[in-house]
Amino acid sequence: MTKSPEELLQEFEPIFYPRSIAVVGVPQFGQKMGNAWVKDLAEVNFSGAIYPVDRRGGEFLGSKIYPNLMSIPGTVDYVIVIIPREATPDLLDECIAKRVKVVQFYTAGFSEMGDSLGNELEKVLTRKAQQGGFHILGPNCIGAYCPESRVPYGPMVSVGENGSVGFISQSGGIGGKLVEIGVTRNINYSKGISFGNGIDLEGIDFLEYMTIDQKTSVIGAYLEGTRDGRRLFETMKNAAKVKPLIVWKGGKTEVGATAAKSHTGALANSSADIWSAALKQVGAIEVHSLEELADSMLIFQHIKRWQGKGIAIITGLGEGGGGASVAASDICIGLGLSIPPLSSSTKQNLGDLVGQRGSILHNPVDVGQGGGIPPHIDIQEAIESIFADPAIDLVLTQQNVGVVLSHQPAEQVEKIMNVLVKVMTKQSKPLVMVLPHGLHETERLRIEHKLSQSSIPVFPTMERAAKAIANLSRYSRFQASMESP
Amino acid sequence: MTKSPEELLQEFEPIFYPRSIAVVGVPQFGQKMGNAWVKDLAEVNFSGAIYPVDRRGGEFLGSKIYPNLMSIPGTVDYVIVIIPREATPDLLDECIAKRVKVVQFYTAGFSEMGDSLGNELEKVLTRKAQQGGFHILGPNCIGAYCPESRVPYGPMVSVGENGSVGFISQSGGIGGKLVEIGVTRNINYSKGISFGNGIDLEGIDFLEYMTIDQKTSVIGAYLEGTRDGRRLFETMKNAAKVKPLIVWKGGKTEVGATAAKSHTGALANSSADIWSAALKQVGAIEVHSLEELADSMLIFQHIKRWQGKGIAIITGLGEGGGGASVAASDICIGLGLSIPPLSSSTKQNLGDLVGQRGSILHNPVDVGQGGGIPPHIDIQEAIESIFADPAIDLVLTQQNVGVVLSHQPAEQVEKIMNVLVKVMTKQSKPLVMVLPHGLHETERLRIEHKLSQSSIPVFPTMERAAKAIANLSRYSRFQASMESP
Repeated sequence: MTKSPEELLQEFEPIFYPRSIAVVGVPQFGQKMGNAWVKDLAEVNFSGAIYPVDRRGGEFLGSKIYPNLMSIPGTVDYVIVIIPREATPDLLDECIAKRVKVVQFYTAGFSEMGDSLGNELEKVLTRKAQQGGFHILGPNCIGAYCPESRVPYGPMVSVGENGSVGFISQSGGIGGKLVEIGVTRNINYSKGISFGNGIDLEGIDFLEYMTIDQKTSVIGAYLEGTRDGRRLFETMKNAAKVKPLIVWKGGKTEVGATAAKSHTGALANSSADIWSAALKQVGAIEVHSLEELADSMLIFQHIKRWQGKGIAIITGLGEGGGGASVAASDICIGLGLSIPPLSSSTKQNLGDLVGQRGSILHNPVDVGQGGGIPPHIDIQEAIESIFADPAIDLVLTQQNVGVVLSHQPAEQVEKIMNVLVKVMTKQSKPLVMVLPHGLHETERLRIEHKLSQSSIPVFPTMERAAKAIANLSRYSRFQASMESP
Repeated sequence: MTKSPEELLQEFEPIFYPRSIAVVGVPQFGQKMGNAWVKDLAEVNFSGAIYPVDRRGGEFLGSKIYPNLMSIPGTVDYVIVIIPREATPDLLDECIAKRVKVVQFYTAGFSEMGDSLGNELEKVLTRKAQQGGFHILGPNCIGAYCPESRVPYGPMVSVGENGSVGFISQSGGIGGKLVEIGVTRNINYSKGISFGNGIDLEGIDFLEYMTIDQKTSVIGAYLEGTRDGRRLFETMKNAAKVKPLIVWKGGKTEVGATAAKSHTGALANSSADIWSAALKQVGAIEVHSLEELADSMLIFQHIKRWQGKGIAIITGLGEGGGGASVAASDICIGLGLSIPPLSSSTKQNLGDLVGQRGSILHNPVDVGQGGGIPPHIDIQEAIESIFADPAIDLVLTQQNVGVVLSHQPAEQVEKIMNVLVKVMTKQSKPLVMVLPHGLHETERLRIEHKLSQSSIPVFPTMERAAKAIANLSRYSRFQASMESP
């Protein structure tokens, strides 16, 4: 009984686009998670109705606290549960009666506890959800996140901008970090989900949904385990066929797997090699850390496809770039990327524009002239001539904003940023930028944001940029292999 | 003719502790590198005399510009050269006459240019240095850096605090980045050197010096090549016997080696495997990126030795830490580190202190209770009880400051920081902290600085912290192997 795409989209609509949300567990005068959640829903301007619920009643932020779901006048699409586990079965009876669509349990203490009551309760909840025809998110999770519908990620004040990246996280904490990284580094999400123990909907289900969701063009997932390896495999295969799928598998080591069991009740201890082989076979991109997951989502947000032919490395934008050019080459080559020589006409052109002394004009290119780029050098033309080289189809560059600003005026950094933005309006090959952390962090963030608006992905280290490019290249090759007869 | 340690220390004294510096190439009304350098020497309160020199004379910042070295009234220890390469032989004649001790060439365009004039000039300079009995730094370098004597790293405004970490960098740009990272991340240097083409003193010489320099307790090096592989090998062996030696070799790939040739004239293309094997054999710690170099210097600055027995991972300090605990375990185990189970009495103790629900109380330990640590939980006692476990001899923890502050008051972060600082006053096992970048960067930096003052090294990602710990463990094992009969 496979659902049609239309049915699936409709079924998940109230998860990411609820028209009303009830938060159960909001004591009057309380400073609990429930209070914070209600406050945040209001602060981020959630567009639908918000109903605080607590059996003791009262008022919170000028709104009535309803003693139970039945006393809420309107319909309730989405229920957030923050009450002790023992009270959850009775609440689900209310949910059945109120005909809610989705119940999300922040409440923890179920199968991940390892006690018999926790396991038993999960079975009761699942049965009641089937009876009421609604879905459960969790338990032990943060639930849905959707910037478009202004559904915040739990009581997190920053919702971020609406975008095209979807994430699926078995861990609430890792989901929260992804949201924060998104806001900081301009990864803009279509939606995200933390599903915790996943007793009803789990990773596979959200993967199915995001595969057909037209608003999602890249999927990143943190998974600890699954109930159905075969179905996960099939779902990943279908997903990777139509959009980049990046997977970070948690609990690949024995200690990690034991932790995962206590975290989300997940049976994560199938062999690490089996996971890696399966991910490779279906065309998913396997990553090994939070940072690599975020970096890969970021690069796919900005660069849809890349032939993977040749990279030009440019260093020395406002500082000495010789060592950086050596290091960047070692890192890229070590990851199997190609740094082809520039054509002799490009080199000639660069020599005329930049000058020989203190520069390196093959590839990697170091345009640095010690104390920055002298005013007479036309750096825009130099960069354009590198982009125009037929051997090059991606440019990787870096600027140490903190170092440059420690001995040069701010206009120098501004000028280079504007040049890069302008170059991107004049040609279509992608540009990847490294802006290391350091002094002058505020200025660095401003530049990161500005470049991001011109579809230039920004990374904090050369190593991470190169890894993201390698992942991009891997997926582009997979796409090409599917298209060839 | 091996020099005695006393002779060597005396010979290098004017490099790092010059009593006077002449900067040659400071045009009146100029805004050149030379002007910036003189300005910076004054701004950072270099303790000795500063003499601007330019053949056209004039005044700069209220000081006389001397037309040549001979017209300077006092003695000159250290000369900074920022004039065209063609003019350098005549300048060295002046240096001979003035009996200077050290000449540092910012001027580039020598063997790294690949033209015959560049090569020829290097020979002339070397000959004149021998004749005058002075040392050359470079050419094509930034020269010496020493916070203790207030010698800045080129015209870089931030000198940083005086400390015990020494760096040796063939690349001026990478040296600059190390100084900036030092200021940002509280890596405090005893001294640093950028030696560029190294036609007189090169990496080996500075390694010899830093080995016997009592003010340096850790050495980090970025090397592209050497003229004498055998001597480098012997020197590294002697260094690693007495202090941690961390080496990042640039130009290990063919493209990287070609770039290195154009950068510092270095012949870097001996096999990568030979380098790695040699580094391993002498007990040096090989690293593969700027970040790993800095991270390793940082951990050795704070932690002198670590038996490498067992690590306890603590997550959930103010946020959900389940996923982070799984991820941290995978990363540490993947690097060969040990995350042993806690004793049953520690677990019992933790259960009493933290409570079972929402927590993970084996190792990794997730003390998170969703919305942060409730006021009734004694987190200090919990952390102390983990430190006290006999299976544990290092604690690795993390806090997502940006995430915590997005839904909790600032006091929560402050409280946890104070607990960690307090715990460190009460016991001697090391603590390593991960503070990921994100929102609230200013607050994150403040905490990083505070923790650093309690000898808690801080890393931006779990992966980087674990790598640094693995490097620490590797060197501690090497030390132990030397001590065993």
